[in-house]
This record gives sequence, structure tokens and C-alpha cells, in this order.
Amino acid sequence: MNDPIFERTSVRKYTDEPVDREQLQQLLFAGMAAPSAGNQQPWEFFVAMDADMKQKLSECSPYAHCAAEAAAVIAVCQREEGLRFEPCATQDMSACVENILLEATTLGLGAVWLGIAPEEDRVQKVAAVIGDECASLHPFALVAVGHPAEEFEPRSTKRMDQSRIHWI
Amino acid sequence: MNDPIFERTSVRKYTDEPVDREQLQQLLFAGMAAPSAGNQQPWEFFVAMDADMKQKLSECSPYAHCAAEAAAVIAVCQREEGLRFEPCATQDMSACVENILLEATTLGLGAVWLGIAPEEDRVQKVAAVIGDECASLHPFALVAVGHPAEEFEPRSTKRMDQSRIHWI
Repeated sequence: MNDPIFERTSVRKYTDEPVDREQLQQLLFAGMAAPSAGNQQPWEFFVAMDADMKQKLSECSPYAHCAAEAAAVIAVCQREEGLRFEPCATQDMSACVENILLEATTLGLGAVWLGIAPEEDRVQKVAAVIGDECASLHPFALVAVGHPAEEFEPRSTKRMDQSRIHWI
Repeated sequence: MNDPIFERTSVRKYTDEPVDREQLQQLLFAGMAAPSAGNQQPWEFFVAMDADMKQKLSECSPYAHCAAEAAAVIAVCQREEGLRFEPCATQDMSACVENILLEATTLGLGAVWLGIAPEEDRVQKVAAVIGDECASLHPFALVAVGHPAEEFEPRSTKRMDQSRIHWI
């Protein structure tokens, strides 16, 4: 297995092939394996495979159009209650999303992180699409997932910038 | 290779064995491979292997004591200028730190995420330890890295909670 960290790239074009529920669950278990402040695990996940629901989610951000064509769209949401270290929750949620993206790469899937928080208008739109189940939750990000429709070249080597490293 | 996402755990006890500069650089290249909003790559890294510097960094947070005993301490800092999507920078930085932790696992090292931001007193302390080079940067987190001093059991399976997944 290659290292998914250096293979991952944002994939926004997908084939029509569906993604198994088992694979989607594996992505979410990867998200749940992320570290969190005081182990507070602030995440909840809503998974849409229905065409209408994916379409609605894709309209929640001006940069989320590709979600309509994905095999699945994961709305990653943050709990608002019962957190020990609420100011750190954004960090926890981000580590969770990164794990999902990396696990997708490991499984040969393509995925992309579509930002929702902290843009409040996007947050409200996603909450409205999910409905009552989202009442005590705060939408954080969408992750579109599918089988990649094109060969892609990881960009990570271009980002290896020695000048960012300072030995002290 | 096992999947580092499910192997990773917070490692706070280390042997005296040093960690190669090449391995530390590999961790930081992994961090640089993280996604970021608009590809803004807001990160800069300060790597301390000197005992005195590690001791000083370990005193910047009440939860960072283990950093004094680590082979290296990475101060992960955020640029404050030139960002396209500044409100998303915390998300970018967090994905970067998660990649560093996962890459440490892949290399057989142990690491732990020691929170600095958004606690302003910790941020100021880390900035003071780093000094002038940190003038236009905002300390985000410390990562302590070393060779694990004890066998550890990944906790991730305990966190696989089906009830967090909602199919919509």
C-alpha cells in the first residue's frame, strides 16, 4: 500500500459506480479514530446517497456543485452540547475530516472536502436540508465521495517546501 | 503496512533514542500534503531537538510536560499574512497536524498533539520561546515525537460507534 497521505488529492469528478455502505462506514470509522481534545469526539455523520438529497446538499455552498454527482455525500456535523473543550472542537472536526479523506484514498475512492463552517449561511443551509435530526448539531463540512472518473496526479510533492522548516 | 489511521494513538513516553532529521522532515512533508482552503498552505514548522529548547516548549502548556522527554518537539505555526481564506486556517492547520501524527505512526514513531491555540496564554508563551522568527506567525500546536517507550494499544476500535452514523 502506498502512503495515502502522499497519494491524496481533491477528487471532484466521479463515475456512476455506487460506493458500498460498508466502505462508507469504513470512512466514518476512520473519522472516529481521529484524536480529539480530552477525547471529546464531537462528531456526528449524515450520509446521503439519494439523488435528491445529494442535489440539495450540493446547493449549500457555491463550491459544492460536485456533490450532486458523487456516489455519496457525508455531512460531517459537530455536537454543540456536552463538549469538555468546545474551543478545540474545530480542530477535532478537521482531523476527523482529514482521516475520512485519507481512508477514501486507501480504499481507492476519490473524495473532496467541501467547506461549510465557519460560513454561517452554508451552515444554516445544511442544517435545513438535514432537518430535525440536526437540531443540536452544527454542520461543519461536506465530503463528496465516489469512484474517481479520471486519473489524477497527487500534488503533494509540489508542496514539499524545505523553506517552511526551521531547525531551532 | 497496517492502516496508520487505526493504529495511531497518543504516545507520551519515549525512549532516549534520537529521531533522524530525515524522519522529522518526512513528518513535515506529510503535514505539507494536507488539504487547505484555496490551497493556501498556512503552515510553518519549528523543530526543536535541543534539550533546553524542548524543556522551554514543554512549559508552554499545562498538558505539554511530555515534550521535555521527546526526541523532538515540532512547533506547528500558522502564517498570519497572505491567506486567501483566513477563517479556514484552523481547519487547514488541524489537517496538517493529523497528517504529521499519522506519518509518525507509519514510521514506527510515537507522537502526541499538544494543544496551543486557541489558548492565548499558551500561544504567547510558544511565540516567546521561538523568538523573532515567529513575529508574523501564530503558534498553533506542539507535536512531541519520539520512539515509543511502551507497547500501546490503539483505541480506535473502541470509538467505532454506529450510533454516530445517520443514513439520510
